[in-house]
Amino acid sequence: MGGQRRGTREGQEITIVEVGPRDGLQHEPITVSTEAKVAFVNTLSRSGVAEIEVGSFVSPRAVPQLADTDEVFSRIDRLPGVRYSALVPNERGWARAREVGVEKIALFTAASETFAKRNINCTIGESLARFTPVVSAAKQDGVIVRGYVSTITHCPFEGPVPPSKVLDVAGRLLDLGVDEISLGETMGMAVPRDIRRLLDHVVRAIPVTVLSLHLHDTYGLGVANVLVAWEEYGLCSFDASAGGLGGCPFAPGAAGNVATEDVVYALRASGATVAVDDTMVVQAATQIEGVLDHPLTSRVSKVLRQKAKSAVHGQTGP
Amino acid sequence: MGGQRRGTREGQEITIVEVGPRDGLQHEPITVSTEAKVAFVNTLSRSGVAEIEVGSFVSPRAVPQLADTDEVFSRIDRLPGVRYSALVPNERGWARAREVGVEKIALFTAASETFAKRNINCTIGESLARFTPVVSAAKQDGVIVRGYVSTITHCPFEGPVPPSKVLDVAGRLLDLGVDEISLGETMGMAVPRDIRRLLDHVVRAIPVTVLSLHLHDTYGLGVANVLVAWEEYGLCSFDASAGGLGGCPFAPGAAGNVATEDVVYALRASGATVAVDDTMVVQAATQIEGVLDHPLTSRVSKVLRQKAKSAVHGQTGP
Repeated sequence: MGGQRRGTREGQEITIVEVGPRDGLQHEPITVSTEAKVAFVNTLSRSGVAEIEVGSFVSPRAVPQLADTDEVFSRIDRLPGVRYSALVPNERGWARAREVGVEKIALFTAASETFAKRNINCTIGESLARFTPVVSAAKQDGVIVRGYVSTITHCPFEGPVPPSKVLDVAGRLLDLGVDEISLGETMGMAVPRDIRRLLDHVVRAIPVTVLSLHLHDTYGLGVANVLVAWEEYGLCSFDASAGGLGGCPFAPGAAGNVATEDVVYALRASGATVAVDDTMVVQAATQIEGVLDHPLTSRVSKVLRQKAKSAVHGQTGP
Repeated sequence: MGGQRRGTREGQEITIVEVGPRDGLQHEPITVSTEAKVAFVNTLSRSGVAEIEVGSFVSPRAVPQLADTDEVFSRIDRLPGVRYSALVPNERGWARAREVGVEKIALFTAASETFAKRNINCTIGESLARFTPVVSAAKQDGVIVRGYVSTITHCPFEGPVPPSKVLDVAGRLLDLGVDEISLGETMGMAVPRDIRRLLDHVVRAIPVTVLSLHLHDTYGLGVANVLVAWEEYGLCSFDASAGGLGGCPFAPGAAGNVATEDVVYALRASGATVAVDDTMVVQAATQIEGVLDHPLTSRVSKVLRQKAKSAVHGQTGP
């Protein structure tokens, strides 16, 4: 059980893929202005995250919140050393991405047929066929391609998802030529043993270096799963969103991404090297929170915001 | 590293010690009425938790919020199968506890001298001396005694705390005759490797069956640490508070206890047997939240409260 034993990871460098501007915002009921999105991305750019998923070139009808991704891309300050990526569902999306000079695109499919059907309105096979010309065009342009496999452990419609399905879809994406796979735990229901069961299977066939783990914190397991993936399997790339942004208030299955600052704290305190300034991440989260209609509830952001107001305790017990 | 390997725990029964009415409420700035406390405890009683820490017989000056513990005790419905306990700092506290027929008391000291000094205004040695007559009187009355050791990994004043200090204090408490030890991670800063370092040391000398783990979720590590303690060491008793209640809004070091419903979900989904009805815990949390000035932010309570309003997703990506 488990990959390599932990204890050998001290100092290992972690890659944080900040998905707040895309996965974090896409369900938000309040329309966030282009200006606020640009400011959010610009603050995140200065935090030290390796990559920022800026938006999505899906149909504006499907995700109205991200309809201005083209404009956001053209207005952000792209800092050297930070990668700016976007979701691309098909050739039309790729044309839009190319227009604004996106250097990395992300394709998304699922390990569950029903979820693929409901989320992207096609079978998994059809999604892969649709990706084929996009990957080949992107590669010709020197654009990096990420493939998302969602519902890696649980599907809202099918229930538990077998690891073999995940490996199958991930393998087919790699066969198409994608550079990396992000394993998306869409429901946020997985516990470490689910992640172990999945990774035990996946890392047999796919090098851990091309894997990212994309977790939601729905049931509060995000950080626990990050630590298991890193400590036991040496997985070093994690998707996360500033402030734990994300979460559709009316759809419990899609609650917030695991918070970037929580992931940074947990990994760094566990001995990893994480070149991310968590106070800057929290600054970005606070900025975007100001235009939303609900507070962000990441643990570390709460601590960092409160630290200034810290007071001394009296006699209270443990 | 680690105790027994995980994978052998399937079905193991977990004891939840609900500390919301005591540790959860003690820092709340708004005075909660006796009636609200009684109602809170009564709802928790029906949730299946093994024990409820109802209050504290410390000086009302030190913790005004819990000044009515005597009255709360006399008014709650004590259900068979549930243990109702309270903090007792000294003989005066013990006299009050005895008066209302408390069946289990908890003494509290620390692994850090500075924390003991600031929190209970005496040295660790003095605290143990103060406990001696209380333990002996309690045992004569057939009352169960818990000993809290706080600051088990980090002290707000001294920084990291060596496991040997924790074992020393825990051992001295057991020598006094206490029945169980609750290891309190006061700061909520520990990551699994800190918990492993501690338990590697402690379980060499103390049977895991007399240990509880008392975690705060300050940095979002509560659930990760619970799972490590159970999966790797077989620790089966956890302190937790409904809704993640607790947390002094102005003192980041004392943020909320790990939420009972989050612990219940994580352990049950990991294969443990947890005889707690999480919807009843969330009902209790919602009840007490109604009289506080801030929302409770446990992950699972959010899910359970939203479930009724669940809606279907559109095409959104992973």
